[in-house]
Amino acid sequence: MTADVGPVVLMTDFGTSDPFVGMMKGVIHGIFPEVTVIDLTHGIRPQNIMQGAFVLYRSVSYFPKGSIFCAVVDPGVGTGRRAVAIQTRDHRFVGPDNGLLWAAASSSGIESAVSLENQRFFLDEVSATFHGRDIFAPVSAHLAAGLCPDRLGPRITDPVRLALPGPESAGNGTILTVLDQDIYGNLTLNLKAESFSGFRGGGFVLEFKKTRVIQTHAAYGRAAGDAPFAVPGSHGYIEIAVRNGSAARATGATVGDRWILTERPVCGSAMERT
Amino acid sequence: MTADVGPVVLMTDFGTSDPFVGMMKGVIHGIFPEVTVIDLTHGIRPQNIMQGAFVLYRSVSYFPKGSIFCAVVDPGVGTGRRAVAIQTRDHRFVGPDNGLLWAAASSSGIESAVSLENQRFFLDEVSATFHGRDIFAPVSAHLAAGLCPDRLGPRITDPVRLALPGPESAGNGTILTVLDQDIYGNLTLNLKAESFSGFRGGGFVLEFKKTRVIQTHAAYGRAAGDAPFAVPGSHGYIEIAVRNGSAARATGATVGDRWILTERPVCGSAMERT
Amino acid sequence: MTADVGPVVLMTDFGTSDPFVGMMKGVIHGIFPEVTVIDLTHGIRPQNIMQGAFVLYRSVSYFPKGSIFCAVVDPGVGTGRRAVAIQTRDHRFVGPDNGLLWAAASSSGIESAVSLENQRFFLDEVSATFHGRDIFAPVSAHLAAGLCPDRLGPRITDPVRLALPGPESAGNGTILTVLDQDIYGNLTLNLKAESFSGFRGGGFVLEFKKTRVIQTHAAYGRAAGDAPFAVPGSHGYIEIAVRNGSAARATGATVGDRWILTERPVCGSAMERT
Repeated sequence: MTADVGPVVLMTDFGTSDPFVGMMKGVIHGIFPEVTVIDLTHGIRPQNIMQGAFVLYRSVSYFPKGSIFCAVVDPGVGTGRRAVAIQTRDHRFVGPDNGLLWAAASSSGIESAVSLENQRFFLDEVSATFHGRDIFAPVSAHLAAGLCPDRLGPRITDPVRLALPGPESAGNGTILTVLDQDIYGNLTLNLKAESFSGFRGGGFVLEFKKTRVIQTHAAYGRAAGDAPFAVPGSHGYIEIAVRNGSAARATGATVGDRWILTERPVCGSAMERT
Repeated sequence: MTADVGPVVLMTDFGTSDPFVGMMKGVIHGIFPEVTVIDLTHGIRPQNIMQGAFVLYRSVSYFPKGSIFCAVVDPGVGTGRRAVAIQTRDHRFVGPDNGLLWAAASSSGIESAVSLENQRFFLDEVSATFHGRDIFAPVSAHLAAGLCPDRLGPRITDPVRLALPGPESAGNGTILTVLDQDIYGNLTLNLKAESFSGFRGGGFVLEFKKTRVIQTHAAYGRAAGDAPFAVPGSHGYIEIAVRNGSAARATGATVGDRWILTERPVCGSAMERT
Repeated sequence: MTADVGPVVLMTDFGTSDPFVGMMKGVIHGIFPEVTVIDLTHGIRPQNIMQGAFVLYRSVSYFPKGSIFCAVVDPGVGTGRRAVAIQTRDHRFVGPDNGLLWAAASSSGIESAVSLENQRFFLDEVSATFHGRDIFAPVSAHLAAGLCPDRLGPRITDPVRLALPGPESAGNGTILTVLDQDIYGNLTLNLKAESFSGFRGGGFVLEFKKTRVIQTHAAYGRAAGDAPFAVPGSHGYIEIAVRNGSAARATGATVGDRWILTERPVCGSAMERT
């Protein structure tokens, strides 16, 4: 590995039961045997571009400068959607041009983007259903080996922009969207923990269908009972959790569902509390 | 890594929940610290030799020359079945002598095979239930470190041959067998896409129990509705898929099940269509 | 990698669906790019410290000298429990001070232990919920890069000791506890196979609720029928298994459940057998 080229980091919705990821690694090592490959995750929900975009966005800062993120959540494979490589200040991103890379790349300072068109850097045969193996893996390996991105195809200025949804005002409250659900069933909401008065002692109600969350804790291990509570997640956002249980199962909510947050001032009178 | 020795590639039915694969990697790194280990998959269905044989067969061409495939799907472990290493033109294969390696090795040009009998290259203690850790991992590591296969044991000329099932004629039609099912529920049938007139516009019916498949698409993203359809898979075979769903669940079919294909000439009259 | 520093070996209860493990690897590679990282397993049952302790204990001897085990099963994260690094004759262990590391470390010859307090070797921001990424990963990477453990914090002499449960006498019999359950449903009991007269021909009954196990086999492949049987496991303990099935499902037992073993002398008369 040269001094300023980092690992190839893979993120897909392929799961790990099938040989798809293994074949991608075979292709990458065949092109650049000295490469380091790291699995970020292959557990993105099938075709859930928004979840993939959020997971990539929250993860990039933990990887060394020069990392090449090869991300594939690609419902449009084989339909003519573009493929892109984006150069940022610190990293490179390779994947389908469907917005998956946008939040992460733009947080990392986009410098240029190219459309992947030079077939010389693809596998000889490109299938209609598996561009992860046939296009994105070999392109990532060539970049890791030092290829200049401009060799991959023409510059573009219009990669698909997919902004992660932000909090939305609604009457007295705020609509928050579930961005991620982890294996424990913890739910990530799209509000920064530092913007949430509940973590500073303020009264609040967070509602989804029949569930009302009114408690906060500083860490999972500090909760008691089985009521869902809000906790500052390790990604800096609000997380809904249940002690020794699954908030997703307890509340019925999952990625994309919308909660309503009603906050009361930190110094509000006790009478305002329900 | 020397110039002409490739990575050790692992394929098992061990899953990834248990420490089995991790222990194999510990053994391999202990013998040859500079090794590169790649997981092809550990999600072969338990003891399903045929699925394992197909997955290995369809995957080898994506790995660099000199790769050492260490494959373990081994219902007969501890019963006296032989263990083998097979040298081919491009690769080496290590595993139980139960046919698992045959399709992949023979497609890669078999040059010689040996029975693993030299205990010097095993762990000191060999359990009756985990030859992956005790025999196949250390043997693979020694091969990666440059050991000549003939040091492992005597040459044999009769490794177990397990041919993947081919299409079978039956009356007016052809019987096709499901070789693989991926995590999305897509089903791989044992007919090369290039041999299927349906992809060139011909009329056809593919039947399994109550399911009738009569449509084709060039890629998943081009389908509409929820009827199962045929698509050229990334492995070059016919795949049965459902848009945003699982063909396995929709049809009830899984690995080993048999479908009946009835084709009509590409130029057949419309009246022949049901 | 220097000659005497081994790989960083990860064991957690994080699963592999989420980006948690990937972020830990990003942190580790950022600190020490030449590191080798091996996944032992991420499939420990959530917060099951005893299972994690057993899996680590049974696995360490398969890893090279100098390995750094970074183990995280951490229900008390964020509650003020200590974090530790333990130096043994052959290895180093990093994780929460909740007993998880104890059985493995003490079997490997403990030389010293330190409390992780020097924040210079943590990430700049330490969350309340993910010390795997923020503390244990960077500390492990620094150790792999050659850091002396005493730089991490003050020596301690009282790390939490968690002994794995041993067999307990009870009337005529012995109470055995399930230490582990693998993906096939095989159950590991806490009795060394070499201490079990059943494997030397002795009569015995192993009971859990309605299940009575009275047969042994030398390997899985030697069993017939679907009755649960005892087999010497690859870890050296008794394992309860079912041919082509799951002993966990067949018996209803899982990690932590207790069986009753009644043995009869190897030379006992047939009339004693039920």
